[in-house]
Amino acid sequence: MKALVYNGPGKKVVEERPVPDVLDAGDAVVKITKTTICGTDLHILKGDVPSCTPGRVLGHEGVGVVEKVGDGVRSFKSGDRVLISCISACGRCEYCRKGIPSHCVDGGWILGNTIDGTQAEYVRTPHADTSLYHIPEGADEGALVMLSDILPTGFECGVLNGKVAPGGTVAIVGAGPIGLAALLTAKFYSPSMLIMIDLDDNRLAVSKKFGATHTINNKNTDPISKVMELTGGRGVDTSIEAVGIPSTFVLCQRLVGAGGVIANIGVHGVKADLHLEDLWAHNISITTRLVDTVSTPMLLKTVEAETIDPAMLITHRFKLDDIIEAYDVFSRAADTKALKVIIEV
Amino acid sequence: MKALVYNGPGKKVVEERPVPDVLDAGDAVVKITKTTICGTDLHILKGDVPSCTPGRVLGHEGVGVVEKVGDGVRSFKSGDRVLISCISACGRCEYCRKGIPSHCVDGGWILGNTIDGTQAEYVRTPHADTSLYHIPEGADEGALVMLSDILPTGFECGVLNGKVAPGGTVAIVGAGPIGLAALLTAKFYSPSMLIMIDLDDNRLAVSKKFGATHTINNKNTDPISKVMELTGGRGVDTSIEAVGIPSTFVLCQRLVGAGGVIANIGVHGVKADLHLEDLWAHNISITTRLVDTVSTPMLLKTVEAETIDPAMLITHRFKLDDIIEAYDVFSRAADTKALKVIIEV
Repeated sequence: MKALVYNGPGKKVVEERPVPDVLDAGDAVVKITKTTICGTDLHILKGDVPSCTPGRVLGHEGVGVVEKVGDGVRSFKSGDRVLISCISACGRCEYCRKGIPSHCVDGGWILGNTIDGTQAEYVRTPHADTSLYHIPEGADEGALVMLSDILPTGFECGVLNGKVAPGGTVAIVGAGPIGLAALLTAKFYSPSMLIMIDLDDNRLAVSKKFGATHTINNKNTDPISKVMELTGGRGVDTSIEAVGIPSTFVLCQRLVGAGGVIANIGVHGVKADLHLEDLWAHNISITTRLVDTVSTPMLLKTVEAETIDPAMLITHRFKLDDIIEAYDVFSRAADTKALKVIIEV
Repeated sequence: MKALVYNGPGKKVVEERPVPDVLDAGDAVVKITKTTICGTDLHILKGDVPSCTPGRVLGHEGVGVVEKVGDGVRSFKSGDRVLISCISACGRCEYCRKGIPSHCVDGGWILGNTIDGTQAEYVRTPHADTSLYHIPEGADEGALVMLSDILPTGFECGVLNGKVAPGGTVAIVGAGPIGLAALLTAKFYSPSMLIMIDLDDNRLAVSKKFGATHTINNKNTDPISKVMELTGGRGVDTSIEAVGIPSTFVLCQRLVGAGGVIANIGVHGVKADLHLEDLWAHNISITTRLVDTVSTPMLLKTVEAETIDPAMLITHRFKLDDIIEAYDVFSRAADTKALKVIIEV
């Protein structure tokens, strides 16, 4: 089969690989129909993710058809159309049983990281019963690829952790795919104000289309004074960090009002300043989270009900043969205006 | 009347002052019977609290007898024995109505800060209906002084924010009065492990008496490896910061397990490092809070029911005439083994 293989920092190649087989009774082998590229894949290619070693097939998102299952798999059989979660959950460990499978002792984020992933014709998915989802009849499979990672990440790490609520005020720092996923899912809860902050006018225009009530380009507008003006000097109830660098995390600290939440989604490579000299008495919470994908069944229902359309996040489509070009387009998002790209297999 | 007056950094004096009068319809004037000294008073004396200007009568804790009330006061009358909250709550503003009167637009922490406080024979208490509490018949008034600030602070900022739960594991960094108040009130929720970490063996011995299941002197034991050993490598569910310096806040980040909470109680004067490069995927919360004293009615019931005895925190007693000596004993706690001191008026 064809597969996109990480060959060490800066190096990726499309290679012929053997089709994976069931190794454990809980495994499924899934024939991929659609996959995508994540910002995390770019981090791996920069050499930022030491757990991912050269020779690894990348990718942790996708939909497909079950080819084969192990003896222990009860909920899926050959021929089933499935959504693959970016989090593999054994379902039995302490963390899985308390609802944070991102910390599963025999899983978590392993696909395209410590085991071969989804940017290939086939993938082996461990713990199939608790890591795959049946795809509803007639669903748009491209849209559902957004439910492997990005949509639950924006929703769980940003919206749920951020306690977005009816009438509440929300600022999202970073209008990339993940910030937009938070924006789309924040609307579930009818906040009164959804402020998107970014340096890119195109992404801010997209945010407006996605339902932002206000956009701020912090290249030419001071986002702090603007947010304070919008919120009567109070600051926002929820400030969502969707970039992953110290300056945007500090900006979130300046935007949040007394009693509010800073919900971090960004993947951070370095420490950041926490201004406790101001915040110790500010009655705020800061939350961090690796997505657990525990909200995937709920999100599937919102897609079926057409409450949201995750296909809005898809800007480009490629064939697996052209995945190198897809990486190029995705990584030059400022020029190409790419949000999410779909790879058809 | 006699009053302890702040006269600028490093300077305090007992002075004759006029007895305060009702200035607003919502005010009460309370004849103080017992008050105490808070770590925050020491911060003021160091010049760390610019909102408190020279000439201010210090003190934000105390019990007493209502001397006089304004026309608008409904719940209290002359002769009533009352507990004074360190937080003055108008009860009407947006913050009061959503349960965070620490941010009251016409109150908050003002006593002994922006208006004259309780280390005197009399004090004027604004918003009496929503800032005083009736003292139950037969209660130990000294013990109740602990409910003005320290006990609700340990409870609300440490225990409630820290989501201490039955069977849970808790580490408290800092065995001063505030850490001990968190320890006492954490026991309400029957955690399985209450680990106290401090540099002072005396305070650790006190912690044991107060119900700590484990104590760690981090002068001679690495608290991180010890806590990991105690928790099977997981880290604690709740780590409570009760010191207020960057290193202890960073220590709390090392102690907390996946899915846990870092509850900050400490008053911080400078920023601290937040190790987002480790924590972004650790599914944790960090909380900050200035006490709201919304739990005072509940805490009063626990004292009445003898579930806890806040008098355990009292190590020394002085007369108001000797308050300068009381400050000296309280500020040299490592030598004097002082926890809380009671000033009898």
